[in-house]
Amino acid sequence: MTTPVRPINLFEYERLANQHLSQMALDYYASGAWDEITLRDNRAAFERYKLRPRMLVDVSQRDLSTTILGQSLQLPILIAPMAFQCLAHPDGEIATAKAAAKMGTAMVLSTLATKSIEEVASVGNQTPQWFQLYVHRDRALTRALVERAYAAGFQALCLTVDAPLLGKRERDTRNQFVLPSGMELANLATLTDLEISYKPGESGLFAYFLEQLNPALTWKDLEWVQSLSPLPLVVKGILRGDNALRAVEHGAKAVIVSNHGGRQLDGAIATIDALSEVVAAVGDTAEVLVDGGIRRGTDVLKALALGAKAVLLGRPVLWGLAVGGEAGVGHVLELLRDELDLAIALSGCAKLQDIDSSLVLRL
Amino acid sequence: MTTPVRPINLFEYERLANQHLSQMALDYYASGAWDEITLRDNRAAFERYKLRPRMLVDVSQRDLSTTILGQSLQLPILIAPMAFQCLAHPDGEIATAKAAAKMGTAMVLSTLATKSIEEVASVGNQTPQWFQLYVHRDRALTRALVERAYAAGFQALCLTVDAPLLGKRERDTRNQFVLPSGMELANLATLTDLEISYKPGESGLFAYFLEQLNPALTWKDLEWVQSLSPLPLVVKGILRGDNALRAVEHGAKAVIVSNHGGRQLDGAIATIDALSEVVAAVGDTAEVLVDGGIRRGTDVLKALALGAKAVLLGRPVLWGLAVGGEAGVGHVLELLRDELDLAIALSGCAKLQDIDSSLVLRL
Amino acid sequence: MTTPVRPINLFEYERLANQHLSQMALDYYASGAWDEITLRDNRAAFERYKLRPRMLVDVSQRDLSTTILGQSLQLPILIAPMAFQCLAHPDGEIATAKAAAKMGTAMVLSTLATKSIEEVASVGNQTPQWFQLYVHRDRALTRALVERAYAAGFQALCLTVDAPLLGKRERDTRNQFVLPSGMELANLATLTDLEISYKPGESGLFAYFLEQLNPALTWKDLEWVQSLSPLPLVVKGILRGDNALRAVEHGAKAVIVSNHGGRQLDGAIATIDALSEVVAAVGDTAEVLVDGGIRRGTDVLKALALGAKAVLLGRPVLWGLAVGGEAGVGHVLELLRDELDLAIALSGCAKLQDIDSSLVLRL
Amino acid sequence: MTTPVRPINLFEYERLANQHLSQMALDYYASGAWDEITLRDNRAAFERYKLRPRMLVDVSQRDLSTTILGQSLQLPILIAPMAFQCLAHPDGEIATAKAAAKMGTAMVLSTLATKSIEEVASVGNQTPQWFQLYVHRDRALTRALVERAYAAGFQALCLTVDAPLLGKRERDTRNQFVLPSGMELANLATLTDLEISYKPGESGLFAYFLEQLNPALTWKDLEWVQSLSPLPLVVKGILRGDNALRAVEHGAKAVIVSNHGGRQLDGAIATIDALSEVVAAVGDTAEVLVDGGIRRGTDVLKALALGAKAVLLGRPVLWGLAVGGEAGVGHVLELLRDELDLAIALSGCAKLQDIDSSLVLRL
Repeated sequence: MTTPVRPINLFEYERLANQHLSQMALDYYASGAWDEITLRDNRAAFERYKLRPRMLVDVSQRDLSTTILGQSLQLPILIAPMAFQCLAHPDGEIATAKAAAKMGTAMVLSTLATKSIEEVASVGNQTPQWFQLYVHRDRALTRALVERAYAAGFQALCLTVDAPLLGKRERDTRNQFVLPSGMELANLATLTDLEISYKPGESGLFAYFLEQLNPALTWKDLEWVQSLSPLPLVVKGILRGDNALRAVEHGAKAVIVSNHGGRQLDGAIATIDALSEVVAAVGDTAEVLVDGGIRRGTDVLKALALGAKAVLLGRPVLWGLAVGGEAGVGHVLELLRDELDLAIALSGCAKLQDIDSSLVLRL
Repeated sequence: MTTPVRPINLFEYERLANQHLSQMALDYYASGAWDEITLRDNRAAFERYKLRPRMLVDVSQRDLSTTILGQSLQLPILIAPMAFQCLAHPDGEIATAKAAAKMGTAMVLSTLATKSIEEVASVGNQTPQWFQLYVHRDRALTRALVERAYAAGFQALCLTVDAPLLGKRERDTRNQFVLPSGMELANLATLTDLEISYKPGESGLFAYFLEQLNPALTWKDLEWVQSLSPLPLVVKGILRGDNALRAVEHGAKAVIVSNHGGRQLDGAIATIDALSEVVAAVGDTAEVLVDGGIRRGTDVLKALALGAKAVLLGRPVLWGLAVGGEAGVGHVLELLRDELDLAIALSGCAKLQDIDSSLVLRL
Repeated sequence: MTTPVRPINLFEYERLANQHLSQMALDYYASGAWDEITLRDNRAAFERYKLRPRMLVDVSQRDLSTTILGQSLQLPILIAPMAFQCLAHPDGEIATAKAAAKMGTAMVLSTLATKSIEEVASVGNQTPQWFQLYVHRDRALTRALVERAYAAGFQALCLTVDAPLLGKRERDTRNQFVLPSGMELANLATLTDLEISYKPGESGLFAYFLEQLNPALTWKDLEWVQSLSPLPLVVKGILRGDNALRAVEHGAKAVIVSNHGGRQLDGAIATIDALSEVVAAVGDTAEVLVDGGIRRGTDVLKALALGAKAVLLGRPVLWGLAVGGEAGVGHVLELLRDELDLAIALSGCAKLQDIDSSLVLRL
Repeated sequence: MTTPVRPINLFEYERLANQHLSQMALDYYASGAWDEITLRDNRAAFERYKLRPRMLVDVSQRDLSTTILGQSLQLPILIAPMAFQCLAHPDGEIATAKAAAKMGTAMVLSTLATKSIEEVASVGNQTPQWFQLYVHRDRALTRALVERAYAAGFQALCLTVDAPLLGKRERDTRNQFVLPSGMELANLATLTDLEISYKPGESGLFAYFLEQLNPALTWKDLEWVQSLSPLPLVVKGILRGDNALRAVEHGAKAVIVSNHGGRQLDGAIATIDALSEVVAAVGDTAEVLVDGGIRRGTDVLKALALGAKAVLLGRPVLWGLAVGGEAGVGHVLELLRDELDLAIALSGCAKLQDIDSSLVLRL
């Protein structure tokens, strides 16, 4: 990191990252769908939950470690799958993977990564890595992705289900978003000679989704997805209790309450508002994670109090990556971990298991 | 369309239209009654409803077509009746009718149109056209309007019931709003030699209403209105369940939940907030439509989820008309249709019948 | 009126009045107690009530007349008691009384008027006039005021009960508010040789209250007040159902739900929020009026729908008085009457008795 | 006081104090933890409670005196424990103690005072003084503090339980907050030769807490704390009914509902929102006090109506101290007392015992 003053929180990373990114990359990362109502609401919703801390608990020794899918993590904060990380820094997903490994947490690698499955796997095997899957119209290609991930040592398959089509991010439409020349989808090399028909005045990614991804995917296809490897299935993009239950019935070991960072269906319920319903629906039958708008340790605490087993951190990782590569990502994770550590102490919790729903109140 | 950058949503059309309209016309179109509380609330209310999308539904083939009053439409978005469209573009209601026909939807022609019933009918017969009726004090004139509409091939009579007097739009009062010389009420030629007594410091339209329209209209008069033609009756301007039920009891085949775009009784409930009560009241006995504040595909989706069969689009049509005549209106409709198409896909609906009330939650 | 452009609503009168008043007078009229929370909330609360208008009612003939205390008024809008009206215009309370009489409504004359009881009575006897009473420590003085009012033909006694001490209006404190030299309390001439001990850095009115008014007044004193004349008693300044009931039990024929325009206890409930409870408590045993924040005809309509028999209009009368003397007050009343007339028509009411509680909904 | 215009409320003291304090001191006093949500919410929450005043009560003689822990106070407003008062004025805690004594109320002296226990005790013995305790890792040091306080005549021990670690106040982190050279923790002289390991880019106070205070304190330790002296125990920093009850079960005679002025766990519930639950939980078994955001007499009134026996005033005391030393603190207390006196009068209460829960309504 070359910046003289080190950021002291994730918001400062966001501001600093603006200076390190092209407008097109910044817009791609920062934007939400349509009027960005859900993007804003993901944040605003956290403020509606008030904390009710307990006092006079011995919090001298604190432990943030947890177990997700039977895999040990040093903190309940995973790195959400995010595409095109080389837009933020030349080291891209490699830097992110190294930082995650150093912090003892899991990174979820995007299908749309700009580093290959194998490269990423090679740096991060101290901690679990998960692979995020978009099911393509081309089933062979989809199968190949899963097989490569499994072979490379990834430990879970995270299927994104909220993007049968790409949400409309108007900043990308205005920018006619495309990857810079020379940057490519590292795991989809077979696609390079495909002719993707960009419509003028459109986002290139929107066109890609329309042409390549399978909008006909249904619950029944989860069996096929699971048949491709022995990896446990995590279903990402659930906002309803009934859907969460259905995912579990079809084999999911965990669900991620997510609205894709406000980038798909604008007006969708904030994730923290949807969390309780999902937790109540699945009970002990699966683990529930949540992403969207996490910026403070207290946000993580609220999510855990509402029943999440862990959270996924998205954009702030990219801000750290843009500002300082691996070190930047690492510092972002450190800051959030330290905030969570202090937040649980001040709430009267020494370990994550001490957190219960009475710690939050929606006012 | 001569604008170099094509708008990508309806808000951009609104901004662009400001450059194409005289201040008097802009004010007439944009304004609401008194403090414009309802005007703003019509929009703000949509944000209070959150979407709860379903995932993993096959949405590869989507269908936005519907049937209203037994008439087939390609999309559940009609064009609301709006007066004086020649203020926006020389082609006025003709351009709007052509665009509606091309998009496969219905236009509701205003009594106060600046193109004649017959002219409009001549361009749009691929899709249904409805005629909006103001009952004048002069019953013969009223009868003549209905008979002409029926003869010209209009397929429904849309009776506006929320304007026994005209709402006070203070911008019009300040502008002493009148039609530009040379522009006339194309269907009320018999009125040209009437002496309308404009009060100085008043809106000319306010004076017209006071002098010409019948503020004594009651439910019983619906029978007389229906006796004028075989056209099915649609009652527009309902905000209460009891009134909706009464409309149905008096023969209405559909009701439109409307507060006249916030232009009549300021402080009236937002239409999306009134919708559920009306839907519950009429049940299956009539179709319910709604207008007011629709700007995004997700707004349409929310309205349908709350039980509307379709929505009516108002001001954005005028912005399109001002910017680009028929092509502008067409593009506005296309944009909204495409947004709705994407919104239902992202909500897990392949066709309108898949939309149910569980998709929305008022938070 | 000498202003070239005539205001078209009460807010415009407020803005215009700013140019006609000294800063000290403007501050005295406009300000509320402490942080002015209640001052603002009186207005904001009206927006929380939404109107649910009825359609297809014959509203061709409308009637705004009503009867309060058995006295006929042409409109359900009285003029609230307000002190020191000569600060706004040399004609002071005389101008206000003339305008009220011309409009067929009642003015409530303040104890702290700058025109005498007799002068005011002489201009307004076509319509009822009420006298507002502050009970002074000096009971003889108090008795004299009531006897003069009765003798002069006033028709009701309006006892203010929310000011045992004067609320702290900080603008007045900063201005060290006093009446301009030459202006006097026209009905308290006996006080001229009293030594009122102004504290430096204080409002003179605050000192007056402290020294002259009786903070020991209790419910039992209502009998003494009523013994001073045969005038019916109206208790002004009630915000609770139990207090309203108690007023009635002690002889009040009407209560006015009021927080003194936000000028006494800051943080007190908005009057429109307190109204329903008072109406429910007194039932048919007394009439309920309300003041505070009325600026639009729809505000009056909401108050009537919530059970008020009439409203009292305060500051806007002063703005009219400042701008144009009697004509200004008259125009203010006309504007509000016309708005109310239109509002009831658009709500499906031809007369005040048609207004019911289903017209409003608190959202 | 040297300022020409005397502040007329506590907000004006705050603005004025900005000119009397170094940026580091101002930031230390004014800031809250992390995003300062709770800091703001402490204030905002008061506005959500509306007052329902009673009328026609004899309020000519008013009495603000009360009894807390059997100790007589002239007003229900104590001075909250606040560290480092010499940052605001050279006289520091001495000035504050003198002002409190003059006004007949209790000051709570902080463990982290910049004047010694004995100095402070020597000025204030007309009124009770309480000693605020942080339990240090060094139990002998902790015991010595309590014994000195008891010996000096302090009358209660106020144990802060919401700070096992120090909250993260980012302004202090940015300022790398430390005491100016020459200023010291007057009661912790034994610490001067301790090596406190400041981390660069950290608040010195944060480091102090981490190194010196005991984060392992539990309910059982309350017995040990009470064993150190016969002083009654007050537990400060409670936000839950169950915790309040537990404090009482472990011997506390009073609890203070507090979130440490928004300086510890950001996102914690506003104190006025937590108060009712605590009051209901402890019933008559202990006294309940509250601090956080008190700026107006009406805030005190609302707290008392919700069941608090008294409030503690924090930052405004420091503003008064910065502006005018003892006189400034005295004037701040006078202003708030006078506001409370007026507020209870206008609510129909002559003494504190007349205040009941029906005076407030959460809207």
